Amino acid sequence: MIACRRFRRSFAVAGLILAASIRILGGQAPAAKYADVAEAIRMAGLRDEYAYTLLERLTSAAGPRLTGSPAAAAAVALTRAMMDEWGFETWLEPVTVQHWVRGVETARIVRPARPDLPPLPITALGFSVPTPPEGIGAPVVEVRSFEELHSLGAAVTGRIVFYNVRMDPQPMDTFQAYGAAVPFRSRGASEAAKLGAAAVLVRSVTLRTDDHPHAGMVAYDSDAPKIPAAAISTKGADALSALLKAGESVELRITLGCWNLAPTTSANVVGQIRGSEFPEEIVLVGGHLDSWDLGTGAHDDGAGCVQAIEVLRLFRELGLKPKRTVRAVLFMNEEFGASGGRDYAAAGGRKAERHIVAMESDRGAFLPIGFGIGGSPRQFARLQAWGDLLKPSGILWTRPGGGGADTGPLAAQGAVLMGFVPDSQKYFDYHHSALDVLAAVHPRELELGAIVMAIIAFVSAQEGI
Amino acid sequence: MIACRRFRRSFAVAGLILAASIRILGGQAPAAKYADVAEAIRMAGLRDEYAYTLLERLTSAAGPRLTGSPAAAAAVALTRAMMDEWGFETWLEPVTVQHWVRGVETARIVRPARPDLPPLPITALGFSVPTPPEGIGAPVVEVRSFEELHSLGAAVTGRIVFYNVRMDPQPMDTFQAYGAAVPFRSRGASEAAKLGAAAVLVRSVTLRTDDHPHAGMVAYDSDAPKIPAAAISTKGADALSALLKAGESVELRITLGCWNLAPTTSANVVGQIRGSEFPEEIVLVGGHLDSWDLGTGAHDDGAGCVQAIEVLRLFRELGLKPKRTVRAVLFMNEEFGASGGRDYAAAGGRKAERHIVAMESDRGAFLPIGFGIGGSPRQFARLQAWGDLLKPSGILWTRPGGGGADTGPLAAQGAVLMGFVPDSQKYFDYHHSALDVLAAVHPRELELGAIVMAIIAFVSAQEGI
Repeated sequence: MIACRRFRRSFAVAGLILAASIRILGGQAPAAKYADVAEAIRMAGLRDEYAYTLLERLTSAAGPRLTGSPAAAAAVALTRAMMDEWGFETWLEPVTVQHWVRGVETARIVRPARPDLPPLPITALGFSVPTPPEGIGAPVVEVRSFEELHSLGAAVTGRIVFYNVRMDPQPMDTFQAYGAAVPFRSRGASEAAKLGAAAVLVRSVTLRTDDHPHAGMVAYDSDAPKIPAAAISTKGADALSALLKAGESVELRITLGCWNLAPTTSANVVGQIRGSEFPEEIVLVGGHLDSWDLGTGAHDDGAGCVQAIEVLRLFRELGLKPKRTVRAVLFMNEEFGASGGRDYAAAGGRKAERHIVAMESDRGAFLPIGFGIGGSPRQFARLQAWGDLLKPSGILWTRPGGGGADTGPLAAQGAVLMGFVPDSQKYFDYHHSALDVLAAVHPRELELGAIVMAIIAFVSAQEGI
Repeated sequence: MIACRRFRRSFAVAGLILAASIRILGGQAPAAKYADVAEAIRMAGLRDEYAYTLLERLTSAAGPRLTGSPAAAAAVALTRAMMDEWGFETWLEPVTVQHWVRGVETARIVRPARPDLPPLPITALGFSVPTPPEGIGAPVVEVRSFEELHSLGAAVTGRIVFYNVRMDPQPMDTFQAYGAAVPFRSRGASEAAKLGAAAVLVRSVTLRTDDHPHAGMVAYDSDAPKIPAAAISTKGADALSALLKAGESVELRITLGCWNLAPTTSANVVGQIRGSEFPEEIVLVGGHLDSWDLGTGAHDDGAGCVQAIEVLRLFRELGLKPKRTVRAVLFMNEEFGASGGRDYAAAGGRKAERHIVAMESDRGAFLPIGFGIGGSPRQFARLQAWGDLLKPSGILWTRPGGGGADTGPLAAQGAVLMGFVPDSQKYFDYHHSALDVLAAVHPRELELGAIVMAIIAFVSAQEGI
């Protein structure tokens, strides 16, 4: 903070000079016109790495922020305070959120007798129903696809179905492999329940082999019994599979003590710098404030939240006055159904506003390498030139398409969805697990995400769409 | 290993099919012609992450590999054995190397009396002369530039000169900031010695603030007294600077117990797959086997060594038979003068050979993002099209220029220097410090470096330059 304030005055002056030079260059293409301001944003960001300071506060003071939890409520107050400190206009917008609570979770191998093996590391999936207090003891059936499950038919009755489907290491875009593996986590319980299964264990969706279960949601079909569902670490899955391969009948006792409580009220946190000429036109930057509860949600999505705040802070630091309003929105409840994004778009306050751009950061705080631009093909063609402004900050390509779980609903109101694309190689090492903590985030990579969002947000605010 | 061998046969078959399809496609541009083989290389690499297995062995079995040390000799035997295991043709080529040995290294604050402060974390720079056994006790003078040093003149006589120059966080390419900071480490001792200084401490060249000193070389001028030289951690530098800023006269006692021993003989390690049609034409891939001794040289440059071996292994795995010889060279003594690269280029064995391409990996095992191509502008234009083959593996740009401390001497023999450029954001967090260990390397990022080198090596071996 001290180093940061020391430099502020000189940068505010630089900001004024920049603002003046931008007016003089009015006739130029945006990329050339904003090159100096883009550089100033990058310089100030890399010098201070202030997004990391914010993330340190968020992860240490609020910690794991499961939607509906006291920690999530603390995070609402804390992030609003962070924006108040810089003098942004702030407020809260109410959101109805789920309230699921994790309790005890254990998986012991009952048969064969293997006192040498430790308990299997598992974690309940979000929305999972509990087991009875004494747990569920049942033989395990391993499957590697829904086809294999269905071919077993009634043979799984009373069993624990173990979906042991590896995340595919071969796609360069790990989100592609994630998408292919997730259906077992979300739909696996109901598919197995329809055949009479007692519970499901799902191999964690990660490319690493370790002892950390990775959480996520289970989606129960209304026409199937709700059975307990948990993720098992990849090492645990390999150990269990090896036992089964040895030809032994394997029986587990699984205990999950989780609860589904009544929905409660939380909030989206909003902060903004009001536009000097077109305040009703909004450039939105955002992330989601709720997280899973095994780590502290540093990548997912503390990073997106502090990057959104850092966009506004960089403007303030540099004395940049946007013509249109630039607004940071920290959405609540993304992990349990994304009601925060829907409620934000539907709120009464939106009627007097026009969201022209909405950018969401929810793919971790990794090196930004690309930029996605939604909207019409014509809008894409017009906006693509702005991508040149991001090249000195490491953005190497732009592509059509943008979106996000929380900003998606704003597209129907005419907002162009945009967002930087960080490198995906490591994201699922941490995602939804105890490994998603501050130490897994690099200050420069985190800051670079804020920098590229700030540059595009500023150009959008000055030029409109 | 088991999983890896299990797949080998099916991939060897795929390799034959690929080789057949490549012949059929003889009339196409290289990028289209080799798209399938490039994909097969990427798939096999990402599936097995075998480079990481090699790096695990190198860093655990040989450990820190300071040139001239027994561990460096062990690494020579180990890496040759790694290549023998896969049936490559291997040999050693002798290299005369430096033999500098690190001993005790301490820095205590003698004045003012501050029993609350821990000793300052320092490490001797390579080639540094020792202090007397009882150390050097002297007041400290802080400077932030050579100009400041020279303006002090004789006032530094008998003092410990403390170069406290921060590495600049603002350039995106951290090697640029590194280059600007290194002169204080390399030339600082002699510049201060000419003014009568007793010793120098140099702020570690890293962007992080922590307790780890980062080593590197000192280069003594022949016309200046040789005085002891050490790096100090960035936190130590900040603490020392704060004491000095408080207006106090600060006296330190520094002890360095290092020795410069007589040069000794070590070796470059060579392994190759002989070309089926033009065996005398060589495509070289390489890294350097020696490392600093504070960590285990995982990024610098264990990574480059195992990537070079992995290039050959991927060929073997896929049954690819290069027309020209593809050779992995693990150079010795890069950190202490790069005699390995010079001796390799000058060796008698080179006379019957023609190196057409030389690729060096010595920028850490980070995400590959670009590719540099040396040679003439005409060669660049011709080879640039090959860059398209690397796009699916994440390489986003090509640029003129290639080189490397070890492969550089081959340019005079007509070799085109090439190499992938990994992301540089984090490299200097680890570089030359105790943090450069296996845990700092990500298996996918390491493998991707091997993959892009393997693709270019194969195309070079089939097409020539």
